[in-house]
Amino acid sequence: MSADRAADWAADWAADPSRLSVRYRITGRDTAEVAEAIRVEQTIEFPVELAAGWIQEEVVGRLERTSGDEIVVSYARGVIAGGLTQLLNVLWGNVSLFEGVRVTGISLPDGGASLRGPRFGTSGVRALFAAPRRALLATALKPMGSSSAELAEVAGILAAAGIDIIKDDHSLSDQPWSPWHERVARCSEAVAEANARTGGRSVYMPSLNVPAPEVAERAHAAKELGAGALMALPGITGFDAMRALADDDSLALPIMSHPSMLGSLVVNRAQGISHGLVLGLLNRMAGADLSVFPNHGGRFGFSEAECAEIRDEAVADRRPLKPTIPSPGGGMTVERVPEILDFYGNDVALLIGGALHRGDLATNAARIREAVEAAAERA
Amino acid sequence: MSADRAADWAADWAADPSRLSVRYRITGRDTAEVAEAIRVEQTIEFPVELAAGWIQEEVVGRLERTSGDEIVVSYARGVIAGGLTQLLNVLWGNVSLFEGVRVTGISLPDGGASLRGPRFGTSGVRALFAAPRRALLATALKPMGSSSAELAEVAGILAAAGIDIIKDDHSLSDQPWSPWHERVARCSEAVAEANARTGGRSVYMPSLNVPAPEVAERAHAAKELGAGALMALPGITGFDAMRALADDDSLALPIMSHPSMLGSLVVNRAQGISHGLVLGLLNRMAGADLSVFPNHGGRFGFSEAECAEIRDEAVADRRPLKPTIPSPGGGMTVERVPEILDFYGNDVALLIGGALHRGDLATNAARIREAVEAAAERA
Repeated sequence: MSADRAADWAADWAADPSRLSVRYRITGRDTAEVAEAIRVEQTIEFPVELAAGWIQEEVVGRLERTSGDEIVVSYARGVIAGGLTQLLNVLWGNVSLFEGVRVTGISLPDGGASLRGPRFGTSGVRALFAAPRRALLATALKPMGSSSAELAEVAGILAAAGIDIIKDDHSLSDQPWSPWHERVARCSEAVAEANARTGGRSVYMPSLNVPAPEVAERAHAAKELGAGALMALPGITGFDAMRALADDDSLALPIMSHPSMLGSLVVNRAQGISHGLVLGLLNRMAGADLSVFPNHGGRFGFSEAECAEIRDEAVADRRPLKPTIPSPGGGMTVERVPEILDFYGNDVALLIGGALHRGDLATNAARIREAVEAAAERA
Repeated sequence: MSADRAADWAADWAADPSRLSVRYRITGRDTAEVAEAIRVEQTIEFPVELAAGWIQEEVVGRLERTSGDEIVVSYARGVIAGGLTQLLNVLWGNVSLFEGVRVTGISLPDGGASLRGPRFGTSGVRALFAAPRRALLATALKPMGSSSAELAEVAGILAAAGIDIIKDDHSLSDQPWSPWHERVARCSEAVAEANARTGGRSVYMPSLNVPAPEVAERAHAAKELGAGALMALPGITGFDAMRALADDDSLALPIMSHPSMLGSLVVNRAQGISHGLVLGLLNRMAGADLSVFPNHGGRFGFSEAECAEIRDEAVADRRPLKPTIPSPGGGMTVERVPEILDFYGNDVALLIGGALHRGDLATNAARIREAVEAAAERA
């Protein structure tokens, strides 16, 4: 489905633009019964007949329509007051404990105007890298066990070769082999030196897989040490912690979302929340400028259709929310670049991992940069 | 399985007590292949043969054993350095994106000594309520839509009738009908007044379903306003945010964990993490003194065996971690009390919801208090 079609279809089922509308697919259960359970469970969680009449009318969720195995329930704006955490709670809180229920559509009240979403969006991120047309390139520093000096050396080589985003592998935290502050300082420095030599604009992006109360403070520390972007792990520290990073005007760095621990929300196809909504829309609502997810055909089991759904939810017109740049990874090689760009278009950040390290790192990185430039020329 | 058997069995499969050992059940996939993928994916995420020899030996996870469809992979302590967030990342980060993999056992290095776990534990919570033997009683203020004055009135009635923990319904956040600070002030006051009249020790427990950067500050605000306990939602703001609350010596309030959004981790039986580990052990590792989960036979689909597993993981001997009090809820009525106490024993906090509101609230609450006292006499 194209981005345009995704937007049309969103408009089609979500009746009342002042309410949060959620579309659920019900599998192996009585649709009417589950609809009734959901609209109560996600709001008053109380015997409906014992609630005041106006609460039954105004507060309890409203079943808007049933179509085959899908239902649409809408919720008043007051129900989701309290920020993104309460929006998530209404979207999936107790229903997450139901079997056979999957969220397949979300329509935000007033188009999501209460959420700022990505600070930079596609064009903002492109401006930072002075890359108006070509696909962006990202890679991860690894393997765990390497020293900060070793990782910084690799970061410098990758920056000099034209990789835009050089991020911590999501496995890197505060291990003895490369403590967090030391790594952030060394890698930021190495990337800055490479940029100074080449005139490039690469950034080092540390991981904020750190204790929850330190997420904001480490983000600021990273900026002071020279990091040019940040990676958040919403499956571990929560979508709202990422949202707070994106909304922080004194930080103002692009944010990449990593899918660690988010998998169980999506991979069980009769339960959870659809791939596109979690890795496209929720990340976007929570301010991710870039969203990492496993590409189809790699070592994870995401299908082409599911990856297309992520791409579409990341970029479909949901003004005032800016788009999020899809960042597919896993099994990415220079040979696959044309095929992958055919699929995602050039508004993408290719996440290249181990493949860069087979043979000469600088050569491999330069080849992939050439490949995306050539593709942008042809487009 | 009894708590003792759970402990024996844990000791049996976890070979090296200095390492994190994780047991995975593999469904519908080649066990050896998945084992190899997991030990790399959760550590270096890099072609093993390209890593230094010592990294292959010391950093990559180690396949400890295969037994039928189960495997045990262990991880060096250095790999999980960085706190609970990195422990979760190693436990379930990228593997969450695999189909057919479920975590069925966790053995913490040195018994979890780096984690403080619950501050109060069963005996500490019992001491707060001067309830050395009987089952504790908890209920939620609802329905959403009620004003703070209405909720406070209900809180006072419940406290006077002997309900120990009067918590916000997890749906209550910062809605216009009852803004968070107003509700916390009014309900704390109403419970304090009831205690002053009756000599009781009931507590009001507000929900910390608030913006992520405000979790700690609202917890302190709640304490200042008179709240005697706190409810955290680790599925929304993360397990580590809850851990930080529990570890905060200047706060020192009992913490209840609510399962909102955690469902998809457990309900798909061939994927995710077992019920007992998520709702028993992870909550306990993250400092929950009480863990809410849906009881079997209620409106959610948890089985008796799954509830027993939660109970066992909450309380099994994992010194130095104190036990977490299981708090089953959903479909709880006064008639079911004997059966439920038979199942969980008296070291439990029964979470009674809508049933209290059918008929006279004070009478219903007093009856359930009498029922748990009578059961403790008989035991």
